[in-house]
Amino acid sequence: MATEWLVREEGWDPGRIVALGNKFMTGNGYLGYRGTLEEYTKEQLVAVNLAGLYDRVGAKWREPVNAPNGLWTRLALADGRPLTPESAPPLAHAQQLELRTGVHRRETVYPLPGEDGACVRLTTERFVSMDRRHVLALAGSIRTTADCRLLLATGIDGDVWDINGPHLQAYTLGETDGLLGIRAVSQEQQVPVAVAEGFVWLAGDPAADEPQEGHPAIDANGLCIRRTFTLDCRAGVEYRFFKVAAVYTGLDGEGEPEEAARRDCREALAEGWDALRDATAKVWSDLWDISDVQIGGDPEAQLALRYSMYQLLIAAPAGERPGSIPARGLSGQVYKGAIFWDTELFMLPFFLHTQPELARNLLLYRCRTLDGARRKAAEYGFEGAFFAWESQDTGDDACTLFNVTDVFTGRPMRTYFRDKQIHISADVAHGIWSYVQLTGDDSLLLDGGAETVLECARFFLSYGYYQPVRDRYELLDVTGPDEYHERVNNNAFTNYMAARTLDIALETVDYLRNRHPDRLDELFSELAYAPALDQIRRMREKLYLPAPDPRTGLIEQFDRYLTLEDVPLRDLRSRQLHPSEYWGGGSGLATTTQILKQADTVLLLHLFRDRFPREVIRANWEYYEPRTEHGSSLSACIYAMVAADIGLPDWGYPYFMKTATIDLTGESKTYVGDLYIGGVHSAANGGAWMAAIFGFAGLSVEAGRIRLKPALPSVWTSVRFAFRFRGQAFALTVGRESVTVEPLILAEEQVFAVAGREYRCRPGETLAIRISPTDAPNGSQ
Amino acid sequence: MATEWLVREEGWDPGRIVALGNKFMTGNGYLGYRGTLEEYTKEQLVAVNLAGLYDRVGAKWREPVNAPNGLWTRLALADGRPLTPESAPPLAHAQQLELRTGVHRRETVYPLPGEDGACVRLTTERFVSMDRRHVLALAGSIRTTADCRLLLATGIDGDVWDINGPHLQAYTLGETDGLLGIRAVSQEQQVPVAVAEGFVWLAGDPAADEPQEGHPAIDANGLCIRRTFTLDCRAGVEYRFFKVAAVYTGLDGEGEPEEAARRDCREALAEGWDALRDATAKVWSDLWDISDVQIGGDPEAQLALRYSMYQLLIAAPAGERPGSIPARGLSGQVYKGAIFWDTELFMLPFFLHTQPELARNLLLYRCRTLDGARRKAAEYGFEGAFFAWESQDTGDDACTLFNVTDVFTGRPMRTYFRDKQIHISADVAHGIWSYVQLTGDDSLLLDGGAETVLECARFFLSYGYYQPVRDRYELLDVTGPDEYHERVNNNAFTNYMAARTLDIALETVDYLRNRHPDRLDELFSELAYAPALDQIRRMREKLYLPAPDPRTGLIEQFDRYLTLEDVPLRDLRSRQLHPSEYWGGGSGLATTTQILKQADTVLLLHLFRDRFPREVIRANWEYYEPRTEHGSSLSACIYAMVAADIGLPDWGYPYFMKTATIDLTGESKTYVGDLYIGGVHSAANGGAWMAAIFGFAGLSVEAGRIRLKPALPSVWTSVRFAFRFRGQAFALTVGRESVTVEPLILAEEQVFAVAGREYRCRPGETLAIRISPTDAPNGSQ
Repeated sequence: MATEWLVREEGWDPGRIVALGNKFMTGNGYLGYRGTLEEYTKEQLVAVNLAGLYDRVGAKWREPVNAPNGLWTRLALADGRPLTPESAPPLAHAQQLELRTGVHRRETVYPLPGEDGACVRLTTERFVSMDRRHVLALAGSIRTTADCRLLLATGIDGDVWDINGPHLQAYTLGETDGLLGIRAVSQEQQVPVAVAEGFVWLAGDPAADEPQEGHPAIDANGLCIRRTFTLDCRAGVEYRFFKVAAVYTGLDGEGEPEEAARRDCREALAEGWDALRDATAKVWSDLWDISDVQIGGDPEAQLALRYSMYQLLIAAPAGERPGSIPARGLSGQVYKGAIFWDTELFMLPFFLHTQPELARNLLLYRCRTLDGARRKAAEYGFEGAFFAWESQDTGDDACTLFNVTDVFTGRPMRTYFRDKQIHISADVAHGIWSYVQLTGDDSLLLDGGAETVLECARFFLSYGYYQPVRDRYELLDVTGPDEYHERVNNNAFTNYMAARTLDIALETVDYLRNRHPDRLDELFSELAYAPALDQIRRMREKLYLPAPDPRTGLIEQFDRYLTLEDVPLRDLRSRQLHPSEYWGGGSGLATTTQILKQADTVLLLHLFRDRFPREVIRANWEYYEPRTEHGSSLSACIYAMVAADIGLPDWGYPYFMKTATIDLTGESKTYVGDLYIGGVHSAANGGAWMAAIFGFAGLSVEAGRIRLKPALPSVWTSVRFAFRFRGQAFALTVGRESVTVEPLILAEEQVFAVAGREYRCRPGETLAIRISPTDAPNGSQ
Repeated sequence: MATEWLVREEGWDPGRIVALGNKFMTGNGYLGYRGTLEEYTKEQLVAVNLAGLYDRVGAKWREPVNAPNGLWTRLALADGRPLTPESAPPLAHAQQLELRTGVHRRETVYPLPGEDGACVRLTTERFVSMDRRHVLALAGSIRTTADCRLLLATGIDGDVWDINGPHLQAYTLGETDGLLGIRAVSQEQQVPVAVAEGFVWLAGDPAADEPQEGHPAIDANGLCIRRTFTLDCRAGVEYRFFKVAAVYTGLDGEGEPEEAARRDCREALAEGWDALRDATAKVWSDLWDISDVQIGGDPEAQLALRYSMYQLLIAAPAGERPGSIPARGLSGQVYKGAIFWDTELFMLPFFLHTQPELARNLLLYRCRTLDGARRKAAEYGFEGAFFAWESQDTGDDACTLFNVTDVFTGRPMRTYFRDKQIHISADVAHGIWSYVQLTGDDSLLLDGGAETVLECARFFLSYGYYQPVRDRYELLDVTGPDEYHERVNNNAFTNYMAARTLDIALETVDYLRNRHPDRLDELFSELAYAPALDQIRRMREKLYLPAPDPRTGLIEQFDRYLTLEDVPLRDLRSRQLHPSEYWGGGSGLATTTQILKQADTVLLLHLFRDRFPREVIRANWEYYEPRTEHGSSLSACIYAMVAADIGLPDWGYPYFMKTATIDLTGESKTYVGDLYIGGVHSAANGGAWMAAIFGFAGLSVEAGRIRLKPALPSVWTSVRFAFRFRGQAFALTVGRESVTVEPLILAEEQVFAVAGREYRCRPGETLAIRISPTDAPNGSQ
């Protein structure tokens, strides 16, 4: 296995358990399975995180439900002493993940007592099936260096990790036809969750020598069921087993989940390990065919970028049910398992360009939660759709008003994520419109997209204000992406995005009027929209869009930002009194300074880059970059991408690597105040792809034309990737002095603008374009 | 001296020094002299607080300057041990203040060493002259019970108390023609400050027996100059002295201040104690003639109310120079000696009704600081006049952005007093218009008042926003009187006051058009005002004025106030972690709750009481009252006044007493965060008068008609007071069953509406009106 496909970590370090749980994540969109060891429990944050099933206990935060862990398996000595890293520090240990197939492998050598140097090697391979979305499979192998008796316990651990639980109750546990099962129901909506598990010995069945005692027992806490085998191991003999687990919930629409889980379990056992693994590998192979990005000259970046895409692929919604991707993927209950703007702005582009059907599904999720967004708008006295800052199944906002705890007083701190980050509605409209533009498929508009877009525009209409003296509309009291500055006026990013939303609404109306006039009439009548339309036109015409200062080129992040204290980041850090004090909020360290949490105006300059001269974008990058704390994992990728936009990819490269390796290194904020925010960083994962493709390869699409403005970092010799556009597919290779375009699916000719010149790509013909050194990435600008 | 004119405190308590310094204040508008003992120094917060002279040292807060203390005098034993309360705890001690004359008297019996029971009685009387505004006078008497030698040191203590000083520098000290003198200059603007002092023995001059050694010496610190007399006292003989001091600054326009001070000193010495005292008493007598309020049946309230008026009278600006009254009067440098809205809303009414010439001067101060208000508006990107929240000599805002220190982190806390309390400009316009209405004198309009009013309206025009969906103008991101809730939208008080300002501007324009068309043309041309006028009309027409809820009668204090946590005040208090933590600001205890700092909507309901039915006012009083923390001394008087407005004076009486006794008891907040905010409470002093006259006596004036709607507290049998109205003067006596109107100055008949019926008061005729029991205060409503 090429190292560019393999993530591996050797040695056991108790301080890395949580980080490795994220790093070695497996999943299939239906569920996420943390990269913990089979013998681990909730103490080590084992989680079988279910997508889309949320539960609330009392007044605690509503969050996704973790299912019982059907892969739980533990070796023990004959006297019952468990063989876990904690109680028997391993002689050797390694974990690895094959990105190409999604198979996780662990190998641990535990010491055995008694004879000097005797040990047992436990090896497992496991995966969450991409083929059968409810199935997890595990193959295990045990081999000792001396004859000895061991115990192998395996079954279902229903004592799950919860942050604001317990979410499961009314457990029933038992064995039916040799399959173990746990069924429980969620507290809030009484949704049943069932896990079935089956186990077989494959080779060296110790029962051949000695009667096995694999009778199931239920733990004293009534939450776990397990069999325990007594293994009389012979030195050097490998004992191999295979187990599967299947998970269903009441939301799956497959009848009684217990029954469905048992059925899947039986079928999977019958298929066997190899067949199951081959089937999932085939799905993975197809995914990589369209998704992979090959980087020449930089194996480290290659692995990191693949790993980033892997994380997106295991979190992307499975099946037909509209769904989206939470901010922390399926790595746990962090951030309430909620969907943020992260999805539309940072993850959607990858899917739009590689799996548009899946992108459509992500956006349909927003259309299906439109009523929640309407309720939120109405709650605050606005019209239209104000999407949830933290969205779960209904679209009602899971974001609380008190999101952070003040570390100095222990009091909950009022934050304005929920009330003031109005750009979320623009982000949603932008996502929907991007889909329509990139796919040419208007079915999303008819399937709720148009209604959503119109309602987002109407929200801005009711949120905006006209100032008669300045003769302009303004957006007041908002929070932009830089959440350290809450409740500001005319955040440039927000204003431009709101203007974009108004444009999208007007374009949607024009489009429907031409193509689907009946649908337009229907919508206008349902929404009583006609009077709003004129107001939207007026607002669009007069909406204040902060322009670059003619002298400095700077776009002020929001009104009076430049009057704030201009303190170096280092100095501000030295004022910190508590390691996890929150820098934003009413009294945060950064609030009264120019230090920002994350790319804000610089993100605007990417999204609207055709409106601004390169010098303006550069001036802003140079101004805001040293003032950015990167307190959000969404920040670095934007600085990487925009550095490439302005022809300075080497400025962006460290930010790209920071983004792409975020879940490999595990070096990221884990606490804000006393709030745990660990887990994988799906937006950064998507941002790594964006930085590589939009940034370094320089791909952009507009008005039916595909544009390439490459700016490869010095260390890259080339980048090769495939993408889809309006039913077509292309493979592009961007080198330092050439660009090659291979049409994969192409019916008619397609125009490519490469480094400023236009080329026509024709079906069946590969287009090879030379680019001159001055077009190339590091040409001095 | 009747006890209703006498404030007296016996005994010496070191914990009361600061409180008594406020309680026994004397002053004359030119300067305030704290009620400290003659032997005290800056350690006990002695201050000769100069009105209108401000100074800034480095980056510290700009604040008024304290002059050297020319009355400093101290007894000592022959061996030099000082006779001060600290070093020789008094056997008896008393301080008192005669409100009728403004004379402070202290009497202290200090023990003498040696013979059992021997002691010395030191008595002084002093006053700040109302007749000669630069002069302070002191008469002292020393009598021992045994023959003994004492030292009397007396001179000028130039080592002044400063909060953010030192403000004085470049001291010169010396004696000229027997007068001591100190001259220094302020740091910022090099304004000279001079004090001259003269001393004479009146009786029992010890020098008759023994040569005196009253040669002046200058202290080691170079800041004080004093003579020391050796007194060979004979038992039972009274030794009396008399000293005067005069203070001038470079702002007084009287040439070299040193010279002027010496001149005044010489003249005052020549006049002598009795003549000086009689002259000041005459001024006081005239003041009381027009100011006094006589309460029947309630001596405690009588004293407290007179005391409140006394505090106003000693702080009111002297002379012709436009000036105003700082929030803490002239009791020190607290609150930077700045003028707040306190003056217009809480102090102005007393002067408007009793000394309209002085009221005019208070308002001229605003007209003269209009350019400062323009600069502030421009600083924030607005037009017109945004008056300073804390105004000093130039009208530039002395209020800092970080006004409070966070007690938990020691960090400065961003507050929004300065930026968001836009009602200040409405308060100024309201004050100016009230003057014009009450006096009928339009000279103020021509002397800057009209320009100020127009510029205030224009400020609101540039601050307000039109919301097209709701088809109304709104005022966003403001702080109302309730400063615990910063940055709110549509604070009802602010919106109504802004509407009032727009009305005033429109009425001013109409008035000038009719009476002074040239002046109007001139103004419109200077201010390029014509386009603003139409916009002001439109804004006024559509300005959102939060209406009472039809069901509950409640006017919501600001948008979404009622969604805040409705926690009992007691419970909120129990959450307090630090005794002086600030309840407002970004993370304040009250910020996210319905607990308010001070009357806000309830004040609105007084100012606009004719617009609302009594039931609405009552519903709001009842709702907001238990939710008010009264963290401001401006709060209680409003609850008192509005309780009377709704016919429930006994609900208001405790609030009246709280207001009227605030500087007698000294029980008020002394710290916010770590900021000292002690001193006298001039707004509460004015509020006590308002509660008595507007509330209990029920006086109001509108459209040329004087209205009385009495509502006396049960304990009051009557209230008698005089007031002026459009060149007329009346004395009113409000009893429980009758109202008597005596015209003092009256040329034509004047309509009085009493308890709903109209009466005509004719020159020379006293009007006696019976009011029926149901009109009377406590009739059930």
